[in-house]
Amino acid sequence: MTVSSSEAEKNQMLLDSLTNRASAIEHTLDKLLPRVKSGEANLIEAMRYAVLGGGKRLRGYMVTEVSKLFNVDEINALHVAASVEMLHAYSLIHDDLPAMDDDDLRRGKPSTHKQFGEATAILAGDALQTKAFEVLSLIDTHESAAIRIELVKSLAQASGDQGMVGGQLIDMEGENRHLTLPEVLNLHAMKTGRLICYSAEAGAILGQASEKQHHHIISYGRDLGTAFQIADDVLDTTASAEELGKTVGKDSAAGKSTFVSLLGIDDAKKEAQRLVNRAIHHLEPFGKEADNLRALAEYVITRKS
Amino acid sequence: MTVSSSEAEKNQMLLDSLTNRASAIEHTLDKLLPRVKSGEANLIEAMRYAVLGGGKRLRGYMVTEVSKLFNVDEINALHVAASVEMLHAYSLIHDDLPAMDDDDLRRGKPSTHKQFGEATAILAGDALQTKAFEVLSLIDTHESAAIRIELVKSLAQASGDQGMVGGQLIDMEGENRHLTLPEVLNLHAMKTGRLICYSAEAGAILGQASEKQHHHIISYGRDLGTAFQIADDVLDTTASAEELGKTVGKDSAAGKSTFVSLLGIDDAKKEAQRLVNRAIHHLEPFGKEADNLRALAEYVITRKS
Repeated sequence: MTVSSSEAEKNQMLLDSLTNRASAIEHTLDKLLPRVKSGEANLIEAMRYAVLGGGKRLRGYMVTEVSKLFNVDEINALHVAASVEMLHAYSLIHDDLPAMDDDDLRRGKPSTHKQFGEATAILAGDALQTKAFEVLSLIDTHESAAIRIELVKSLAQASGDQGMVGGQLIDMEGENRHLTLPEVLNLHAMKTGRLICYSAEAGAILGQASEKQHHHIISYGRDLGTAFQIADDVLDTTASAEELGKTVGKDSAAGKSTFVSLLGIDDAKKEAQRLVNRAIHHLEPFGKEADNLRALAEYVITRKS
Repeated sequence: MTVSSSEAEKNQMLLDSLTNRASAIEHTLDKLLPRVKSGEANLIEAMRYAVLGGGKRLRGYMVTEVSKLFNVDEINALHVAASVEMLHAYSLIHDDLPAMDDDDLRRGKPSTHKQFGEATAILAGDALQTKAFEVLSLIDTHESAAIRIELVKSLAQASGDQGMVGGQLIDMEGENRHLTLPEVLNLHAMKTGRLICYSAEAGAILGQASEKQHHHIISYGRDLGTAFQIADDVLDTTASAEELGKTVGKDSAAGKSTFVSLLGIDDAKKEAQRLVNRAIHHLEPFGKEADNLRALAEYVITRKS
């Protein structure tokens, strides 16, 4: 291996790393959500259906990769990664419901309510949220109670009324109404940005990072989160349903203001690149150990799905 | 006041105590869920609508009353009481949804989805669950991180797939199918019993009770939970919608097996009384300080709503 790898080599290394990590996270999720034979078997099946067997695990990857910067035990990092993937999966189940986005397709498969019925899907989402917090509370996640409760607080604040769920409400109410760029930025910072930022921050919490390091990691997560959402809007305009594994073009059909509708495709792409560059800049103090996180930042805006 | 109050006096003391405590819990909830002017204002309104302004606060009362046995600071106990009432309110919002029990009436008012629409109701339930865990994570809830994380774990295990949500799934799948008495006992132990038991246990966790005391409190909570559910089944058969503030007779209409359908009204009432006596017996080590908890046990089977 040469000291400075080419861009293509770095990208391939990232893809391999993502694949390996996704499989470790999948394994952890499988262990944390074992099948049962008792009455609630169908609930567990629906939870497993929603959270296992797919997804790039970008959030879980961020948790584990930031954790590595601070030499966190892998088993601890994988628990927190599994927890954030459960939280994310719950939000997708509920977003897809008929009363919400009414989406039949998710990761190329029928969405959970199409597969298990609406009532079971609502409950599976509810129970996945609960399980995400339960996992954080377990001693296997970290021996320090102070670190575990900090993870609970940070996840709750990222995903509740001031974060993900609040953003989802604003998004919904914004349909058929023109939003300004600051409004769109705020709604996505809440709806998707906060949980992505938490995924980076969780590694810093596990690693007992210094205040300064914590700040750098959060700044990286925040910029990456916004870049991710801009890329999502671009893909929603340019990619096919087959590539994405979910329905496309729904935002413009729903009359939503998006980064693309506000900036145009070219300027949206430029803004995403600017944010990625800034995200990478925040990683400077972490040296070569952060190369995968740098490649990840580039990846979120060049991915095809 | 005489040394041994009459039954009527004890009951009146309990009712006064319940009313005062409900108002303190209401005040705490109001502070923890302040109105906002930003985009998510409507989500907060729906959360407040569901959790404020009504309910007997039996769960919150149990938290605070058990806490008193161990001289827990009132502010800590009220935080945990507010948290469990948020968790309970989330479950009611989702239970009432069209895809679930499809109930238009709750505590004598339109249910949350009738008032705010289905999508907002789903999100308000989601965010109330998140907020319940967030509140437990706050330093104001208890200065010890170990106690806070124990509360998170215990609440998650009481309310997730092995508790409340699992029980709700079993209840739903049991419609139009004959369940045996052990099956009905198990489903209600999960669906309502676990959270009621947690409400008692939370006081013991806050109070750093000894293992033996912890065991007594859990046994009290478990028996009270089952008695509560039997009384609920009896009320569903005998009370009016006006008295209950919710739709009645839905269980038999849905072809559900209940304690009343399995035991008959008279034997169901007898079994509830037996469990209440046993619950009271578990309180023996706590002396006169536990009188309100004893009166509460009698109250859950004599209440009219």
